[in-house]
Amino acid sequence: MNDTRDPNVRESVSESPEAVESTGVISPHFIAQFVGAVGDGDKPYLWRKAKELHPADMADLLEHLPPEAFRKAIHLLGKDLPAETVAELSDNMRLEALRELTDAAVTAMIGHLDSDDASFLLSDLEDDRRVRILNKVSATDRAAIESSLAFDDESAGRLMQRAFVAAPVFWNVGQAIDHMRTVSDDDLPENFFEIYIVDPAFRLQGSVPLSTLLRASREKSLKEIMKEIKASIRPETDQEEVAYLFRQYNLASAPVVDEAGRLTGMITIDDVVDVIQEEAEEDILALSGVSEAGVNQSILSAVRARIPWLLVNLVTAFFASTVVSFFAPVIDQFVALTFLMPVVAGLSGNAGSQALAVSVRAIAERDLEGPLVRRAIRREALTATINGTIVAWTAALVVLAWFHNPTISVVIGVSMMLSFTWAGLVGILAPLTLKRLGADPAVASSVFVLTSIDMVSFFVFLGLASLMLL
Amino acid sequence: MNDTRDPNVRESVSESPEAVESTGVISPHFIAQFVGAVGDGDKPYLWRKAKELHPADMADLLEHLPPEAFRKAIHLLGKDLPAETVAELSDNMRLEALRELTDAAVTAMIGHLDSDDASFLLSDLEDDRRVRILNKVSATDRAAIESSLAFDDESAGRLMQRAFVAAPVFWNVGQAIDHMRTVSDDDLPENFFEIYIVDPAFRLQGSVPLSTLLRASREKSLKEIMKEIKASIRPETDQEEVAYLFRQYNLASAPVVDEAGRLTGMITIDDVVDVIQEEAEEDILALSGVSEAGVNQSILSAVRARIPWLLVNLVTAFFASTVVSFFAPVIDQFVALTFLMPVVAGLSGNAGSQALAVSVRAIAERDLEGPLVRRAIRREALTATINGTIVAWTAALVVLAWFHNPTISVVIGVSMMLSFTWAGLVGILAPLTLKRLGADPAVASSVFVLTSIDMVSFFVFLGLASLMLL
Repeated sequence: MNDTRDPNVRESVSESPEAVESTGVISPHFIAQFVGAVGDGDKPYLWRKAKELHPADMADLLEHLPPEAFRKAIHLLGKDLPAETVAELSDNMRLEALRELTDAAVTAMIGHLDSDDASFLLSDLEDDRRVRILNKVSATDRAAIESSLAFDDESAGRLMQRAFVAAPVFWNVGQAIDHMRTVSDDDLPENFFEIYIVDPAFRLQGSVPLSTLLRASREKSLKEIMKEIKASIRPETDQEEVAYLFRQYNLASAPVVDEAGRLTGMITIDDVVDVIQEEAEEDILALSGVSEAGVNQSILSAVRARIPWLLVNLVTAFFASTVVSFFAPVIDQFVALTFLMPVVAGLSGNAGSQALAVSVRAIAERDLEGPLVRRAIRREALTATINGTIVAWTAALVVLAWFHNPTISVVIGVSMMLSFTWAGLVGILAPLTLKRLGADPAVASSVFVLTSIDMVSFFVFLGLASLMLL
Repeated sequence: MNDTRDPNVRESVSESPEAVESTGVISPHFIAQFVGAVGDGDKPYLWRKAKELHPADMADLLEHLPPEAFRKAIHLLGKDLPAETVAELSDNMRLEALRELTDAAVTAMIGHLDSDDASFLLSDLEDDRRVRILNKVSATDRAAIESSLAFDDESAGRLMQRAFVAAPVFWNVGQAIDHMRTVSDDDLPENFFEIYIVDPAFRLQGSVPLSTLLRASREKSLKEIMKEIKASIRPETDQEEVAYLFRQYNLASAPVVDEAGRLTGMITIDDVVDVIQEEAEEDILALSGVSEAGVNQSILSAVRARIPWLLVNLVTAFFASTVVSFFAPVIDQFVALTFLMPVVAGLSGNAGSQALAVSVRAIAERDLEGPLVRRAIRREALTATINGTIVAWTAALVVLAWFHNPTISVVIGVSMMLSFTWAGLVGILAPLTLKRLGADPAVASSVFVLTSIDMVSFFVFLGLASLMLL
């Protein structure tokens, strides 16, 4: 894929210029070379590349390997595989890599990671292996990881790291800076953007961005320059809520406090960006009836991720068939109706998908709340009716020209208008109802919406045809 | 919507606790009170709220107002409306607000914003009004805004701000800190996370995160502690590329350099988060044939955003009709076939949508590149074939039980298997081909994919029926 190289982006990731050709595009030549080295068991070459490449690029490279080469590369690298690279691998590949690594190698990795990434890796392991490895890491790390794992999978408690900088409210700028200079690297996060100000009981009082701290004179009290915390987050807070707060208030990092208001952790934007991406991706896939996807997904897991919805849809499709079968007499007499069935159902289905996609997104963005709900329902109903009118009577004209039968033409016009209005209404009401019932609006809506539109269109179209033609 | 309040999130945004009940949920009571104040022309109340609330919350509040109250509120607030609030409004509402504001008010706002936000606001205005306003702002601001507006709409040049901190490579930590303490607030970005190190020709050499700078001793040379720049960005770089780099390398900010490698701007993560969100949203909507959406979209613009795809689909639906019409003889004799047409076409269509959603996401995530393409095509084809086999023969059994006609049962089984395989292949090949042709894979794929699946299913099903039943 050399031809997709973007001339506007220059890379200086590694000393070997051929490695990563352009961002995200790893050259086939480099992959072939790497696969060759894996085949030869050339450990020094693999070690060098693992050191040179950015962990995210190294993870991409590993993901591009054929399955056997991937396993062998992990095995050869062993404990020299950077922990950050493993953390950057996609879900399936990370599991695979952890299976290939020894307990000793995983234990060494855990020690190198921030507590959020460490518990992320460990959460993938079987229970007994996790216990075995946790028993080998330092007591401090173990405590941090265990308390992180105690929180729900998609909660702030999992996203947050235990390493952050806190300063007492009575300190001045100079004291805070001196404290940071003396504290050991291991006790600080790799990168941070603000420090937190706490009272003697460790209750959060405010934050001071590093850019403010740097510019203040050493004598200034922290209390004077600290900013109010926009929205404090609890460890139990859902990750979607966290993502919302970061976006709403343009945050780069945020503190997490317990029920007594005591500072317990810090969440940084890089973890939140992953959440934002994941949530949007889940909606796209869910709207199309896919429960999970990934580049390196096996065929078996792709089948498993898609077959449930297809089987549900098979049942609902036969409901639509049954509706059609009621109208056998009119179809028998006017075979032309069968040519038009796909037009009525297909177009109404599309109008429904449009309303559904807009509503699901608006719900995810928290734009469908309070007084805006009624306005949105009105808009969807009217938009569908207007579009239905335009499309229905265009279709009616085409049908008139095709069959020279004004009655069939009126039947298709009226029935399309009605089923479009239905499509618009159900496209917004189904996700709103599901949300009110506590279900994920994206996952379950498609089935209900599209089946009901199919059934309504066939019923209205063939029913009207029976009334007017028989 | 008081019942949706999340007990895990506490808000301390404003001094009036009733204002924002919980994140993102503005109470109906508060809106009513605000609408009342707008109706009474109570300027002091509006000013107070505009000052108390976070700009993002104030923007949400304004978006929840009925259209007339919105316009009146903007008019009453005038130049006291915080510039950041206007920047946070959704597209339609921002345009509306700018229309309501006087040139003097807009000019004052421009002066308060970073250059990226200022040019964002100005890009919405008609050409002559923009020129008029630009003539009133300071020469420095004007130059920054004009050069920003010269870049393409979705480029790094638009995202970047001109305010950043650069230090010569021969300085030490103390010199850099002293420089930042003395420079005026107006010349610095509101918040920043790293400083950039340049040579005497202002060519970028590296970056120093503030957390590193703070902890280093004053005598340390910047050269010693600076980090290599992972991926340098040019002003022409597409915003999707920028978002990719931020995600890949977990960046909080990144420098932008010109063709000679000279530092020209800085992009911060908050702007990139918006891009990530937008791009994912565009894909969701595009896959459902919606070109644009928003809470406060008018019915007219909702119609305009959706009707084009419906009209295209009307044309393609008649292609499918034509396919059906070829087989009138067999339908005439076996009316049961019409009951089953929706089953064959509907389920294959779903299998196609699944493949499409997975492929469009993989392309957006840059996971479908190089050697992974062939593997993905193979996976989609096999997954569709396996799912097709399961679904087809389940359907065949149902049909056998329903019609007691083994031939029809075989016809539906074989034709569903074939059309599923087609659905899987076209679901991945269409977006890949569109991408290779330089088109947006999400926008154009649905039409091609779903129409071709409809036509293939009807052709295979009815064609096979003609061969075996007539």
